[in-house]
Amino acid sequence: MLSVRCASPGRSSRIPPEGVPSLAETFKEISPADFFYRNRDVAGFSNPTRAVYSTVRELVENSLDACETRGILPDIFIRITSLQGASDVSQVLKILVSDNGSGIPPQYVPQAFGQVLFGSKYVLKQMRGTFGLGGKMAYLYGQITTNAPLRIVTSTGSKVHEFSLMIDIQRNRPKVVQQKELKKIKKWRGTMVEFSIEGDYYRASPKIVEYLRQTAMVAPYANISFIDVEGRLIRFMRATNLMPKSPKETLPHPHGIDVENLQRIIEFSKDRNMQQFLTKNFHRVGKATAKLFLNEFKIDPRKDPKKLSHDEIVELARALRSFEGFLPPDASCLSPLGENLLEAGIRKELQPEFVAVESRKPSAYSGHPFIVEVGVAYGGKVQQGGSLYRFANRIPLLYDESSDVSWKVVNQLMNWKRYNVDLATAPLAVVVHVCSTKIPYKTVGKEYVADRPEIEREIMNAMRDVARRLSLFLSKRLSYEREKRRFDVFERYLPKMAKYAASTVGLKSVPSVKPLLVKASKLSSEVVEGGKEKEDLEGSVAS
Amino acid sequence: MLSVRCASPGRSSRIPPEGVPSLAETFKEISPADFFYRNRDVAGFSNPTRAVYSTVRELVENSLDACETRGILPDIFIRITSLQGASDVSQVLKILVSDNGSGIPPQYVPQAFGQVLFGSKYVLKQMRGTFGLGGKMAYLYGQITTNAPLRIVTSTGSKVHEFSLMIDIQRNRPKVVQQKELKKIKKWRGTMVEFSIEGDYYRASPKIVEYLRQTAMVAPYANISFIDVEGRLIRFMRATNLMPKSPKETLPHPHGIDVENLQRIIEFSKDRNMQQFLTKNFHRVGKATAKLFLNEFKIDPRKDPKKLSHDEIVELARALRSFEGFLPPDASCLSPLGENLLEAGIRKELQPEFVAVESRKPSAYSGHPFIVEVGVAYGGKVQQGGSLYRFANRIPLLYDESSDVSWKVVNQLMNWKRYNVDLATAPLAVVVHVCSTKIPYKTVGKEYVADRPEIEREIMNAMRDVARRLSLFLSKRLSYEREKRRFDVFERYLPKMAKYAASTVGLKSVPSVKPLLVKASKLSSEVVEGGKEKEDLEGSVAS
Repeated sequence: MLSVRCASPGRSSRIPPEGVPSLAETFKEISPADFFYRNRDVAGFSNPTRAVYSTVRELVENSLDACETRGILPDIFIRITSLQGASDVSQVLKILVSDNGSGIPPQYVPQAFGQVLFGSKYVLKQMRGTFGLGGKMAYLYGQITTNAPLRIVTSTGSKVHEFSLMIDIQRNRPKVVQQKELKKIKKWRGTMVEFSIEGDYYRASPKIVEYLRQTAMVAPYANISFIDVEGRLIRFMRATNLMPKSPKETLPHPHGIDVENLQRIIEFSKDRNMQQFLTKNFHRVGKATAKLFLNEFKIDPRKDPKKLSHDEIVELARALRSFEGFLPPDASCLSPLGENLLEAGIRKELQPEFVAVESRKPSAYSGHPFIVEVGVAYGGKVQQGGSLYRFANRIPLLYDESSDVSWKVVNQLMNWKRYNVDLATAPLAVVVHVCSTKIPYKTVGKEYVADRPEIEREIMNAMRDVARRLSLFLSKRLSYEREKRRFDVFERYLPKMAKYAASTVGLKSVPSVKPLLVKASKLSSEVVEGGKEKEDLEGSVAS
Repeated sequence: MLSVRCASPGRSSRIPPEGVPSLAETFKEISPADFFYRNRDVAGFSNPTRAVYSTVRELVENSLDACETRGILPDIFIRITSLQGASDVSQVLKILVSDNGSGIPPQYVPQAFGQVLFGSKYVLKQMRGTFGLGGKMAYLYGQITTNAPLRIVTSTGSKVHEFSLMIDIQRNRPKVVQQKELKKIKKWRGTMVEFSIEGDYYRASPKIVEYLRQTAMVAPYANISFIDVEGRLIRFMRATNLMPKSPKETLPHPHGIDVENLQRIIEFSKDRNMQQFLTKNFHRVGKATAKLFLNEFKIDPRKDPKKLSHDEIVELARALRSFEGFLPPDASCLSPLGENLLEAGIRKELQPEFVAVESRKPSAYSGHPFIVEVGVAYGGKVQQGGSLYRFANRIPLLYDESSDVSWKVVNQLMNWKRYNVDLATAPLAVVVHVCSTKIPYKTVGKEYVADRPEIEREIMNAMRDVARRLSLFLSKRLSYEREKRRFDVFERYLPKMAKYAASTVGLKSVPSVKPLLVKASKLSSEVVEGGKEKEDLEGSVAS
């Protein structure tokens, strides 16, 4: 592309716009920005409602990431104001989101905000962002609906910079409209973005609030304040100052290597021999393991990786994927919620009668480590008819539920009857959280997780485990209620019987039935069925 | 991007590969090819099975498009051979697809096959391809799994060219390994691609065959031959030489215009004044309409579009979207199946007892014309429990059914009870075909159509219509069966009664009951309930 474009500078500027008829078959090149502009639907900007929802969501996620990568307790502020009604179904909105995160170095600002497929998300690391695209889609959508520039104020701790820029969509290049340095009042670090967008706020707002509520549920260490179009302030306050350790970046695991990836690593590495190459560039490959591997596949440890032929590289890639000797990916780079945080969140938000949570051991799919966490909440304030809460790398997923792997497990694979649960009527809520260095989303809009077999299996196992505990609770409760009913009978009739017995034998004072009650409540429920003990009691009273 | 890249040539070549840890936050740029390489899942290449399926599918669709744009009766040939077992779940496959379509001019071949976001699909026209991406994703996937070059033989009618090339993923640039001109034996025009890919053929094959079967169902004018790994030949022969008129390219409809699009059209157009600008560049805007529009929004017809300010452009875009005076998009550019073809296809494939089809009038969503065609098949060889067949621009959609707008309509919005249909048990099949200059897919993998309100409404109306006809058929059949049962009673007993009556009154010959039977069968079913007519009959016999 480089050469092509440079060879004919400005060429792309004469590309006819979409829909200008041309000869039978015109071949043309479009920029990535142009691609996503033409295909908003794939990035979650399919209609005015979704557009507003996705915008808030993507910006909040970027802000949270910006804080967590630096281990900063997040303070997120969101404000949406309505400038004017654009049509009956949509308004021109001004959206402002600010955080106290890492901030962006000024030299990167134009591209980081004004160029699609440029960003800091292209590393192997647990992050909310995956595609480095969501934020830009929002600005892009704002620009194409209102044509107003994007305003950015950011500081990495020292100076504060303000930018005003737009995106040249056809060339996927930022256009800086204005740039200045602001006088610094107090020590501030973070990023604030403000831009206008046309969308349907009123349909979007319930989803937005729900999204923020669920986000707060899995990020209780964040302050999130939201001022909506009506000027109402909705706050989700920090519940703890303890942050889960921030996720680390990792090397690729050999089982996830493909030829392309391997070639890049070779091209990039400075290692002189295979032994060193393997230990330096791959996750979980130590000296010993490397030796074993090289032995098994008859590769000379002293060979220079840069001297590998194409076919050798293909073979090597296949060998790396298939070798059993590598340890599974180490999940220390992940930061799951943990069972306590998950349970606390569920209790706080759903106020159930019973909760069971399970945080699975780390596992891996095609070289990417991942951890599955599952929780079930039953009874109490939980609504009837089994609701499902999905999270991926701490992102609540609210759309296209039925395409998600969790939905498949809960509604199709799980045999709930075996656990005495009728999914249709039970006051049951299921929570699933998947965290990984790479969540296999099936849409750029990050609506749902693909049903990779490894992930499906982990969710299934976790689900079975919590379901078992739930059914135990249910049967316990059942026998307790039976016992309770039985006891109530005694409580009601024993005093009467005692009185009667007393009068017949001419006792002055009616004897206390307490000891009997105690005795009764201890009787095993089997014996009860025949009213046997009644006689005993009468007998004992009579004597 | 242009300037940035040229300013630092080769810069991208030092981008660390994914997963090479770098400083806390590294900002980097990736090419579109790299983006889709990193995010295969979003393009339908999420696992070895899907990869093979998507590959065949994308190549077949490109071939069909290549034929139909030129109005050529398609002859598609597909061959998959297994080179070696790569692992227990996947094999190295060689895939060959050839067609007799338009062929590709040699100067475009390298980019058309080796550069993502370059192609002939970026126009407003009903095509199977939408993203100009699927084929390249297949080659890309083949390259990263086998690292073998892609072989292309193509001719636009004159010379035959052969290319062997690979994709420089990091730079999104084709690398031509070899190029030569072939001696021409006979006049041949078309394209043949051959490349190797690692995938799970055996899991994919049923889906592939089902895909080809359904494709043949909606493209009965095509010859499709498929030789599978076992060497079996599966053929879907041409059933008709009549091709639906090939779809035309259109201008954008004013109701679908956004600011970005409008700016491009202005930049591109050579029109001197607004009047001319509107009539020349927009769909369904004639002189009269243009005048009305310009009047209503107080725009000077003589104004030079190139002189419009940013704010004026924003206002103009809004005006174009909201003006009621424009005619709805003209669907002459679309090529629906038509009710006959649809019904024929259904009868051939499903062999039902009853069929009802409905081809709706053209409609439009945000400026894109579309047509919805729906069919229901009942009874006969149709399986129980309501199956749904989805097509978009003649593409069968086999994955993620439950996220598709048609599924929503059939399973959630339609009240089938009202039509005497129990969806769970009925031998019912529903077929939905949506064709448009732009299908709003929600994934780049083209698995399902977004539930745009306009499209949903059209499907709903069509569905109600065919359902009404179905319920009519069902109630007719019901009353027929009741009538039948009733008639059988007479048929059984009348002769006996006649005999008995004859003997009692001492008749020699038993009178014929035919006239009575005829009479009986004509009796209205109400009268039957009380066995009243029996007496009548006896009476009439007795007299």
